[in-house]
Amino acid sequence: MKDVQNSRDERNIYIDKVGIKNLKLPLVVRDRNRMNQATVADVNFYVDLPHHFKGTHMSRFVEILNEYRDSFDISRLGEILKATRKKLNALKAHLELTFPYFIEKESPVSKSPGLMDYLCTISAAGNGDEKMDMVLTIRVPVTTLCPCSKEISKYGAHSQRSIVTLSVRTNRFVWLEELIRLVEESASCEIYSLLKREDEKYVTETAYENPRFVEDVVRDVTERIARDERIDWFTIESENIESIHNHDAYAYIERNLKAEREKTVREARTKSQVKELISQN
Amino acid sequence: MKDVQNSRDERNIYIDKVGIKNLKLPLVVRDRNRMNQATVADVNFYVDLPHHFKGTHMSRFVEILNEYRDSFDISRLGEILKATRKKLNALKAHLELTFPYFIEKESPVSKSPGLMDYLCTISAAGNGDEKMDMVLTIRVPVTTLCPCSKEISKYGAHSQRSIVTLSVRTNRFVWLEELIRLVEESASCEIYSLLKREDEKYVTETAYENPRFVEDVVRDVTERIARDERIDWFTIESENIESIHNHDAYAYIERNLKAEREKTVREARTKSQVKELISQN
Amino acid sequence: MKDVQNSRDERNIYIDKVGIKNLKLPLVVRDRNRMNQATVADVNFYVDLPHHFKGTHMSRFVEILNEYRDSFDISRLGEILKATRKKLNALKAHLELTFPYFIEKESPVSKSPGLMDYLCTISAAGNGDEKMDMVLTIRVPVTTLCPCSKEISKYGAHSQRSIVTLSVRTNRFVWLEELIRLVEESASCEIYSLLKREDEKYVTETAYENPRFVEDVVRDVTERIARDERIDWFTIESENIESIHNHDAYAYIERNLKAEREKTVREARTKSQVKELISQN
Amino acid sequence: MKDVQNSRDERNIYIDKVGIKNLKLPLVVRDRNRMNQATVADVNFYVDLPHHFKGTHMSRFVEILNEYRDSFDISRLGEILKATRKKLNALKAHLELTFPYFIEKESPVSKSPGLMDYLCTISAAGNGDEKMDMVLTIRVPVTTLCPCSKEISKYGAHSQRSIVTLSVRTNRFVWLEELIRLVEESASCEIYSLLKREDEKYVTETAYENPRFVEDVVRDVTERIARDERIDWFTIESENIESIHNHDAYAYIERNLKAEREKTVREARTKSQVKELISQN
Repeated sequence: MKDVQNSRDERNIYIDKVGIKNLKLPLVVRDRNRMNQATVADVNFYVDLPHHFKGTHMSRFVEILNEYRDSFDISRLGEILKATRKKLNALKAHLELTFPYFIEKESPVSKSPGLMDYLCTISAAGNGDEKMDMVLTIRVPVTTLCPCSKEISKYGAHSQRSIVTLSVRTNRFVWLEELIRLVEESASCEIYSLLKREDEKYVTETAYENPRFVEDVVRDVTERIARDERIDWFTIESENIESIHNHDAYAYIERNLKAEREKTVREARTKSQVKELISQN
Repeated sequence: MKDVQNSRDERNIYIDKVGIKNLKLPLVVRDRNRMNQATVADVNFYVDLPHHFKGTHMSRFVEILNEYRDSFDISRLGEILKATRKKLNALKAHLELTFPYFIEKESPVSKSPGLMDYLCTISAAGNGDEKMDMVLTIRVPVTTLCPCSKEISKYGAHSQRSIVTLSVRTNRFVWLEELIRLVEESASCEIYSLLKREDEKYVTETAYENPRFVEDVVRDVTERIARDERIDWFTIESENIESIHNHDAYAYIERNLKAEREKTVREARTKSQVKELISQN
Repeated sequence: MKDVQNSRDERNIYIDKVGIKNLKLPLVVRDRNRMNQATVADVNFYVDLPHHFKGTHMSRFVEILNEYRDSFDISRLGEILKATRKKLNALKAHLELTFPYFIEKESPVSKSPGLMDYLCTISAAGNGDEKMDMVLTIRVPVTTLCPCSKEISKYGAHSQRSIVTLSVRTNRFVWLEELIRLVEESASCEIYSLLKREDEKYVTETAYENPRFVEDVVRDVTERIARDERIDWFTIESENIESIHNHDAYAYIERNLKAEREKTVREARTKSQVKELISQN
Repeated sequence: MKDVQNSRDERNIYIDKVGIKNLKLPLVVRDRNRMNQATVADVNFYVDLPHHFKGTHMSRFVEILNEYRDSFDISRLGEILKATRKKLNALKAHLELTFPYFIEKESPVSKSPGLMDYLCTISAAGNGDEKMDMVLTIRVPVTTLCPCSKEISKYGAHSQRSIVTLSVRTNRFVWLEELIRLVEESASCEIYSLLKREDEKYVTETAYENPRFVEDVVRDVTERIARDERIDWFTIESENIESIHNHDAYAYIERNLKAEREKTVREARTKSQVKELISQN
């Protein structure tokens, strides 16, 4: 049978990404408390295609996923990308996994246990020459209460569910649980799946005592995350499902902390060199 | 060319609905204030298929929509269904149109104008023998504030956007605007697209003064709608995008008011007949 | 603290369903081949509410789910509904679980293994007086190839992915795998996650040899399922993501097999009684 | 009443984007054939926020949309962005409009008219210093037929609906209709809303005669668009809703044509300078 994909293409056009999208896959991921948790991922999986090949071999992506499925681990991502580049004769490989991640949380007063779900995405790309590029994304639902509404009203203040999305590039291992915690502490109040009456009193009062605009949430996350030496780059978005409108409020910050740190070091060095020169003369 | 659809089917199986789904169509609908408004609808359009035909002619649905598109009106739905039954040799025809419907509302204090969107569905079915069956559905976003949270907390109370969905069968013409109003008046506060500071103060305080569980909203709508002689049947759903959870709170009521009214009449008649009999003897 | 939900409601309105919606939950379900499989479900969970109570206790739904989560099984659904009615003082309880279900399939020629995902819904309702009512729904992606296109064209025929949705009420246990098989055998060809070249040749030719309108798929499923004595009721829908249109083709059948069987028995009995009467006279 | 948003923020953090998201708006857009067409847009609308302000004034975005709504036109986008920067004291403004765009097409043989819908996005950003940055995106559904399947099978070849997404930055006005045409001509066959039997024969045979991998579609678009001097930058994606799998096939190319052209000019200049130098010596 002819291998059409393998035949020569004369258009001389390189393709950045080619592969499969929206494949569902059961997955076991590492979990800080319970070692492992079973979940279901949506998978996108691509390689690049040199200009001279007509097509890529789509079935090989599924073969690779089959091979690693039962013992999948973030620590093996580099290995998977390497195997992919080899099996598909590609320079680059991209793997994106999006899955609900569950954390057991106790409610704040009655200490009732409940599972919270957070949608996570791991997006990894490798080209063989350097370290794999990996972006971790978590989507954290929280409560926000409007500072303006509180300030100007006789009583009450409108609140709503907000979706806060944090993406990071790190230079060291960071638990998803740490990133989630950081976001939850920047909201008016965190969210629980199970709240008894005493807990509901607590979250209502806590949110009222901690009003946050959508702008406040992204700034508070930025303040905390900029201090974390393990984070090289991040974006933070907050989206309020406004209770008083049929549209959402939105804020977004992107920061390249690694570049900022290198700039600070360069400036400090220059400054001390200047000082030294002055003191020498 | 052979008409495959028209050939005989030997399986002897009647099909309840066959047709097209998820077709997008620009549409002009009647509007209480501005006469007409242009919108975009998602269309589902079906007929039934007798057991002896192999298939229906899908292109005819699109032809019919083309024909009526520029002068579409709810009042012509009966005519469209009749034309459909004829053109497709069918006993039954079903047409479902879902579209955003816009109403200009002034904000409550500063009287600033703004457009609110409401997702509406018109679902009509006709079989020729009797009156067309039509269900109107509106999806109304509102604010709800939790009565329990208000009662038990020192200050504040959590609120959220809620989606209230009302479906009705009527025996007379009813404006979408009337149904929307009825739902908005059953919430903690209605929603606006534009709110100035004085308006935000008003909606915050109004919601705080009118706490509503998801149960209260469906009951309040039920109370109001059960008094409306034009409504024969309805379902009412309310869904809170809870600000303190990552899941929603939900309530649902279905009532056949026509049957209830007929029962009341029958019972009254029986009672008066019994009385008469007693008085005669 | 006051129990607001428990207070008396004076509106005198019964609520059909009240509870929680769109809660995500990891779940282990029974699997024909591997005993168990871990998946993630979307959960809707409701009870009814008598007219005299103001509200239901939403946190109790989550408590019940917590309790049964680690050892969930369809065979325990009746027990869960019973516990729910008791814990929430309700007459009726409804539990709806929607989750991807994975089956390992070998490709048709090269026998390469691959996981296929099928979206399933289990919807169970119990009111204590009688047997629990349970509807199983599976959503099966298949290939369909157009009979008309094949008939009238010099070569080729357009094909597409179709989504076939089967819902059943059964009087005995039926494996999800059996229902899925029955649907796949009614399509032009079944779908696989991994196909080598020899497999692709096979599925292409198989689909071409088995053209199916959307009408054919629902009729073929109806023919097969009507013979299965374990099925009391079903609906079957087929939706083609048409490759030649930007809308979908759709067909739908609903059949109450239990009622049909009872009618047949009654008619046979009447007939034999009539015969007997005639022979006696 | 206190203007909380206007108060000073001490965290010293600049916000890239803050504003409103997912607001629905009726819109009239310019149309090549009919002058104007009414549609409904999803609107995202942001500005940046200097580090010293606590918040932005969300209601002003809605006021601006109200003002321009009735006479909206792409040619006024620059004016809207300018007014936004002024009204919100911002350096940057971003406006994103996503809407279905309808084009009347005649079927290929019977010349039957029908409306096709294409989802479009206009994303514009302005900062006052330079020309507004605008990206036009169109999402075009087409038919693709698999070259490998055709090559290796005795008869037939699997086909499917594909979604091709083209984004461009232009240096001159380009009609949406031109971009759509260019994409449709790169597919196995274009898609219509209404096809009679003779048309269905035509599209079936045309697709069979023009097999295209997902890779071919993005390459063919790239070939055509790279020749268009009005286009400075583009991305092209193609996604096959595979008829033989439950996942999609995907390809993606990004090209900065402006930079490529400038590089070519620089290289040509260098070459001719070298030649000149050589000839001089």
